[in-house]
Amino acid sequence: MRSSSVDPQPPSRVEAYAPGSVGNVGPGLDILGLAVAGLGDTVTGERRAVAGIVVEDPGHPDLPTEPSRHAAAIAAEAVFRRLGLERQGLVLRVRKGLPLAGGQGGSAASAAAGAGAANALLGSPLTRRDLVEAAMEAETVVAGRHADNVAPAVLGGLVLVRALEPLDLVCLPVPDGLHVVLVRPDMALRTALGRAALPAWVSREIALHQAAQVAAIVAAAYSGDLALLGRAIDDRIAEPARAPLLPGFLEAKRAALAEGALGCSISGSGPSAFAFTDDLTRADRIGQAMKEAYRRSGLGCEVRITEPDREGLRVRAV
Amino acid sequence: MRSSSVDPQPPSRVEAYAPGSVGNVGPGLDILGLAVAGLGDTVTGERRAVAGIVVEDPGHPDLPTEPSRHAAAIAAEAVFRRLGLERQGLVLRVRKGLPLAGGQGGSAASAAAGAGAANALLGSPLTRRDLVEAAMEAETVVAGRHADNVAPAVLGGLVLVRALEPLDLVCLPVPDGLHVVLVRPDMALRTALGRAALPAWVSREIALHQAAQVAAIVAAAYSGDLALLGRAIDDRIAEPARAPLLPGFLEAKRAALAEGALGCSISGSGPSAFAFTDDLTRADRIGQAMKEAYRRSGLGCEVRITEPDREGLRVRAV
Repeated sequence: MRSSSVDPQPPSRVEAYAPGSVGNVGPGLDILGLAVAGLGDTVTGERRAVAGIVVEDPGHPDLPTEPSRHAAAIAAEAVFRRLGLERQGLVLRVRKGLPLAGGQGGSAASAAAGAGAANALLGSPLTRRDLVEAAMEAETVVAGRHADNVAPAVLGGLVLVRALEPLDLVCLPVPDGLHVVLVRPDMALRTALGRAALPAWVSREIALHQAAQVAAIVAAAYSGDLALLGRAIDDRIAEPARAPLLPGFLEAKRAALAEGALGCSISGSGPSAFAFTDDLTRADRIGQAMKEAYRRSGLGCEVRITEPDREGLRVRAV
Repeated sequence: MRSSSVDPQPPSRVEAYAPGSVGNVGPGLDILGLAVAGLGDTVTGERRAVAGIVVEDPGHPDLPTEPSRHAAAIAAEAVFRRLGLERQGLVLRVRKGLPLAGGQGGSAASAAAGAGAANALLGSPLTRRDLVEAAMEAETVVAGRHADNVAPAVLGGLVLVRALEPLDLVCLPVPDGLHVVLVRPDMALRTALGRAALPAWVSREIALHQAAQVAAIVAAAYSGDLALLGRAIDDRIAEPARAPLLPGFLEAKRAALAEGALGCSISGSGPSAFAFTDDLTRADRIGQAMKEAYRRSGLGCEVRITEPDREGLRVRAV
């Protein structure tokens, strides 16, 4: 599965950027993700003569330099393995724009950028879908086997994961005029903890309701009906299970909706929360109201007013 | 909720037709339905001076003439109640084009036509969405509380039921070139039995997979990607539970897919099965292969090659 336009003289040093993302987008647990602009992770990749991957800068003191444990390196390694080039030499330096364990798709962005850098150094033989698969190998190790962050990190926009085996992704239109309020309270929630809180079984009624909401989000994406999008942000599987782990979230959600947010839920497995609005002025008010709600729960927080990132992974020679 | 264009001189006798439908459309259990052309139920409604609804012809010897038990009459009654006109006099005559307990949306079509006839006799004060609600009252009594047949029977095309309370319907585009093979084996399956077979609980994995399939059907409807539509006809909740009640179904499905059907599943709660194809010649071959498979299971069957009905309920003065 090589792409048709392999660069015959690949660069020896590249910089790859991948955006953060809102996993789940409310009801789309593990199957829907939205890339968001503003913050992302940047991976610089450089060929080296000696075989093997070296993580020269992991991007954060809490991240490992061991290549087998760093998302960017695991994804780069997966790219090499797909091409039968296991003995490739590579030095990686990571700049983390995204918070660790923030629920903003940070590990997926690092994985996407790592895969993108490795691929570009080889002349870009792999397609973007291949890169999603490579990045997913990393995500599986560091955060769990799901593609709802890596797919938008690579492809940009709003992506539906129809199936993992074989990977079947549907890039949905991003409705115009959508603003995203992303609020990260000052607490870390390990993805594994957020995942352990999920129920193993759900009632049939809830399963069908959830399916109808995800389907309605897809309809809203195509039709541009932002009110429908908002009504469909109604997650009855993950949000009720995770909210108890996230002090202040329900209060922040209530505050967001009171300020006219179209919809509000947990971003990925949290702790970040997101809200949608079609009005930039309102976005500010929503962000402030959510911040105030977290403050009342004793938590400071970082508020970002942003919008969908339609581009995803971008790589350039440096 | 009256419509804006009430007829000041309503007719005294009307004929209402509503098409059959494929409930669920595979994974969309209770939340997705497709109206199909060809067969439908016709209800003639006539005003009478004396209060109350009379079912002069129930449409089939096995159907009750009691108004409180006949879908068309219950729906007509619901229309009158919505308008505060409980003392209205009405005579109904039903022509059943659709099979009883066939899984082709017969009770929903009768309900839709009954509601449409009653509304037209009063000058059409109700909107089509109101008529869906009225028809759903009938469906709730005779087949269970779900709108995935009544909504397409009234509105035509492919309809997503985002929520019942309050009713929130999304009319999806019907992709061009879609042919529907509808096969009804010679057996009746009461909707209640088909429903009792459903699991009360499903694993989270299956719930998420199912949501992804319904979402993919919606994406396929908007994008016209019939191959994606076919891949998404992958129901892991209702089909595995109901297939054991439907001798020959799995063999017929295998035969349909072997003949190149895009997808195949149970229509509503069965016993009818449906298959999708984008090729009319292939549709015939699929129908014959399915018929042959049922024959090997000892069942005769009726095969219809049809297509989506985009119009839904239609009413005319007679």
